[in-house]
Amino acid sequence: MNQHDTIVALATAQGISAIAVIRLSGSDCISITQKIFNGRNLLTADTHTAHFGTLHYNGKLIDEVLVTVFKEPRSFTRENAIEISCHGSPVIVKEIVKALLANGARLAEPGEFTKRAFLNGRMDLAQAEAVADLINAETDNARQAALNQMRGGFSKEINTLREELIHFASLIELELDFGEEDVEFAKRDDLRKLILKIQSYLSSLIQSFDQGNVIKNGVPTVIAGKPNAGKSTLLNLLLNEERAIVSEIAGTTRDVIEDEMILGGINFRFIDTAGLRETQDVIEAIGVERTRDRMRKASVILYLFDLSSATLAEIHQQTEELKQLGIPFIKVGNKIDKADPALLTSLKDQDFVLISASKHENIQQLKDKLLSFFHVSTVKSGDVLVTSLRHYQNLLQTHQSLDRVLNGMSEGVTGDFLAMDIRQALHYLGEITGAISTDDLLDNIFSKFCIGK
Amino acid sequence: MNQHDTIVALATAQGISAIAVIRLSGSDCISITQKIFNGRNLLTADTHTAHFGTLHYNGKLIDEVLVTVFKEPRSFTRENAIEISCHGSPVIVKEIVKALLANGARLAEPGEFTKRAFLNGRMDLAQAEAVADLINAETDNARQAALNQMRGGFSKEINTLREELIHFASLIELELDFGEEDVEFAKRDDLRKLILKIQSYLSSLIQSFDQGNVIKNGVPTVIAGKPNAGKSTLLNLLLNEERAIVSEIAGTTRDVIEDEMILGGINFRFIDTAGLRETQDVIEAIGVERTRDRMRKASVILYLFDLSSATLAEIHQQTEELKQLGIPFIKVGNKIDKADPALLTSLKDQDFVLISASKHENIQQLKDKLLSFFHVSTVKSGDVLVTSLRHYQNLLQTHQSLDRVLNGMSEGVTGDFLAMDIRQALHYLGEITGAISTDDLLDNIFSKFCIGK
Repeated sequence: MNQHDTIVALATAQGISAIAVIRLSGSDCISITQKIFNGRNLLTADTHTAHFGTLHYNGKLIDEVLVTVFKEPRSFTRENAIEISCHGSPVIVKEIVKALLANGARLAEPGEFTKRAFLNGRMDLAQAEAVADLINAETDNARQAALNQMRGGFSKEINTLREELIHFASLIELELDFGEEDVEFAKRDDLRKLILKIQSYLSSLIQSFDQGNVIKNGVPTVIAGKPNAGKSTLLNLLLNEERAIVSEIAGTTRDVIEDEMILGGINFRFIDTAGLRETQDVIEAIGVERTRDRMRKASVILYLFDLSSATLAEIHQQTEELKQLGIPFIKVGNKIDKADPALLTSLKDQDFVLISASKHENIQQLKDKLLSFFHVSTVKSGDVLVTSLRHYQNLLQTHQSLDRVLNGMSEGVTGDFLAMDIRQALHYLGEITGAISTDDLLDNIFSKFCIGK
Repeated sequence: MNQHDTIVALATAQGISAIAVIRLSGSDCISITQKIFNGRNLLTADTHTAHFGTLHYNGKLIDEVLVTVFKEPRSFTRENAIEISCHGSPVIVKEIVKALLANGARLAEPGEFTKRAFLNGRMDLAQAEAVADLINAETDNARQAALNQMRGGFSKEINTLREELIHFASLIELELDFGEEDVEFAKRDDLRKLILKIQSYLSSLIQSFDQGNVIKNGVPTVIAGKPNAGKSTLLNLLLNEERAIVSEIAGTTRDVIEDEMILGGINFRFIDTAGLRETQDVIEAIGVERTRDRMRKASVILYLFDLSSATLAEIHQQTEELKQLGIPFIKVGNKIDKADPALLTSLKDQDFVLISASKHENIQQLKDKLLSFFHVSTVKSGDVLVTSLRHYQNLLQTHQSLDRVLNGMSEGVTGDFLAMDIRQALHYLGEITGAISTDDLLDNIFSKFCIGK
C-alpha cells in the first residue's frame, strides 16, 4: 500500500438513494477528477468550494454531479481531497469509480482515509479508532462517548503525562552514562509523585471501562426458563414497546435489529432461548446445551418462572442451578394473574420481579431492575470513557509497569532496571495514542473499518 | 404541503457508512442550520462553499460535520439549500434531523426536492421524472436513457412544436370571434403541414417506446418446462456466469437481486417456475396454474425440453400448447449429451436451441437467441427514447387528436371543432412536460420518488 497513491471509494451507504458520495484522497486526486470532469477547472478552484458539472468516460456522459474540492492540509486526510456527489444509483457509482480507476486512482483499503489522517498527524490513534466507533454507534450514549474520544478524550492528558515520564526516563538513562559515579539526576521523590499521579489518572480511566464497554458494546441478555414460561411473549412485549419509540422518526427502523432494545441509553441484545428441560430427545438436548452455552456468555440472564405451574421446590432448585453459572441473573415470576396466591406470598422478599407478560403487568419494574445492573449515566460532551478493550488492556499494563517502578524504588534497585520498567510503561501508553505503533497494530485496527472511511 | 416550508431529509442511503448527507431546502434553511451550527456564520457564506464545524442541540454536541451552502437560485431546487455531511451512523442522522425539526424544518415528502425543482422552473415534468429513473437505473443503458431525458431529451422539441400549435389554435379561435364573417387567419395548408411534422416526430417517439420500455423496465423471462427438464440448472448457470462479471467492482453485488441478469445492456428478470404436468394433486395443480399465469405475463418464455426422455410427439404437443399463449418463446432442447441422436437429427431446422446445461454447452447460443428478440442498441449521450408508459400514452393520444384535426379539415368541419381537437392535443402534449399539470398528476408522479430526492 503506497501512501502517496490517490485512493477512491464510495463513502455513503450502498443502495438506491437521492445522492451518493464518492471520496478521493491523494496529491493527484484533483487532476485525476479533472480528467473526467466537464465544468470549471478544478485545479484552480479554491479549497472547500463545490462545482456543478458532468462526468465523462470513454466519450460517454456518466452523470451530472457536484464536485467539492479540498486542498491540503485542509481536509480530513490532510491531503488533497475530492468529494463527488452523484445521483444515488449503484450503476452510476460503479461507472464513476471505474472512470477514476482508469485515470490513475486505486480503490481504497478499509479505513485507509482515516489511516492517512492518522499518519499525517490530523488525529492520534485513539481518535482514529473513535471514528469507527462513532459510525457504528447504536445508541446516543455510544455516539457521545465515541465523539468525545474522537475530539481528544484522554489523548491530551495521556500525552502530557507521557512527556513528563519520558523526561524522567531520560534523566535516569543519563545517570547510567555516568556509570560508577554516584549521580542522581532524576529525583526519586519527584518520580514517585509523578508515577502516583499517572496511576491515579490511569485508575480512573480503567474504572470507566465497565461503563464504557456496556455503552459501546451493549449488553447480551439471555432470556431463559423452562418451556412455556412465557419467554417469547416477554421478548415481544419488551421489543414492541420500545420499538414504537425508536421508530418515531421515519427511516430509523430499517436498522433496528430484530432483537435489540435501547433502554436507559444501553443497547440490550436479547437472546431468546430454547426452553430448558431434561430430555431424551437428542436434537432437543443440543438446543438445551446451546441455551446453557449462551447463558454462560451472557452479561445478564432474565430467568422466567411460570408461576401458574411451578412449585416452590422447583423454583428453589432452578435458582440453585442459576447461581452456579456465576452470571448476574434476574428471577422473573411470570403469569402472576394465574398463580396460587400462597405461592406469591412465599416469594415475597426473595428478590423476585413478579409480572404478567400477557397482561402487561409490572413490565416497567422489570426494566428498572435490568437497568439497575448497569450503572450508566448519560454521557455528556467532554466526559472521558474508555470503551476499547485495547485501550483498557494497555492502561492495565501501563499501571502494572509503573507498579514495578515503584516497587523497584522501594527496594532500591539500580537505575537500569527502573529505566526498563519506565520504558515498558511508556511503550504501553504510547500504543494507545499511536505515539508508538507497528504496521501490525495499524493493520489490525484499520482493517476493521468500513471501506470509504 | 406548504411550498415555502424548509424541508429536510436524509439524501444518502440508510445504513452504517463513512458519511451520510442530510439535505435541506427552503428560504430559511440556512438560518435554521445556523441555529445548531458552531463554526463560521453560514448566513454570510458564499454559495457553493463548504464549512467545517459542529452541530449542537439541547446543549449536547451531536457531531463534527461539513456544511455546504447553496444560495437561491443556484441550487437543485432553486431555493436556498444546505447539505450536511456527517458521520454515517443512523443514530447521528436521527439526532441531527431531530434538531433541525425542532428548529423549524419539517420532514420532506417523497420527491419533494425534485417537485420543488419542477415548480420553480429548474426542469420540466419529464426531466423531473427522469431523476427518479436515473436513481433506479439497473443497467448502464437505463442510466443513459434516464440521463438523456433528464438533460432535456424530447422536452425542447415538444415545447417548440407545442408553441407552433398554440399559435394556430389562437388564430383559429380568433376566427371564431369574427363569427359570421368568412375570415381564415389560420392557413389550413400550413396547419396541415405543421400537424404532419408533429405527427412524424410523435411517431418516432412512440416507436422508441418498445426499446425504451425494455431498457427501463427489463424483460420478465419465464423459464418453463416439464419437471426435471433442467430449469433451475439453467437459471443458475446463466446467473452465475454473469454475476461474476457484475461483481468485479466491490460492493455492486449487494444490489443484485437473486434472479436478475444483465445481458446486452438489458435487465432480464428470470422467473423459475414449477414444472408443468397434469396432476391430481390439488396443491401441485395450484403451482402449475401459477406457472401458466406467469407465462402469460412474461415478455418471453424459455421453454425447456428434456431431450433425454421426451418423444417427438410430446415435443410437438407442448410446442402447440406454447403457441396458444401468444407470447414469444424459445424452444430449448436440454441434455443433448444424453439424447438419442435420431431425435436430435429430427429437430434440425425446427428452430431449437440445443444445449446441455450441465455440460455448459451452447449457452452462448441461447443468450444470443434471447437477445435477438429485443432490438436494443447501446444508448448514447443525446439519444432520445421514450421509457415512460405515461409519456407513451400521452403521445398516442396527442397523435390521435391530431388525426381528428386532419380528418376534420378534410371533411371541412368548422373552426370551433378544429380548435377543440387542437386544444385536446395541446393538453396531452402539455401534460408530458408539465406545461399542463394537476395536483393529482403531480402527487401521483412524485409520491413514487424516494424521500430525500
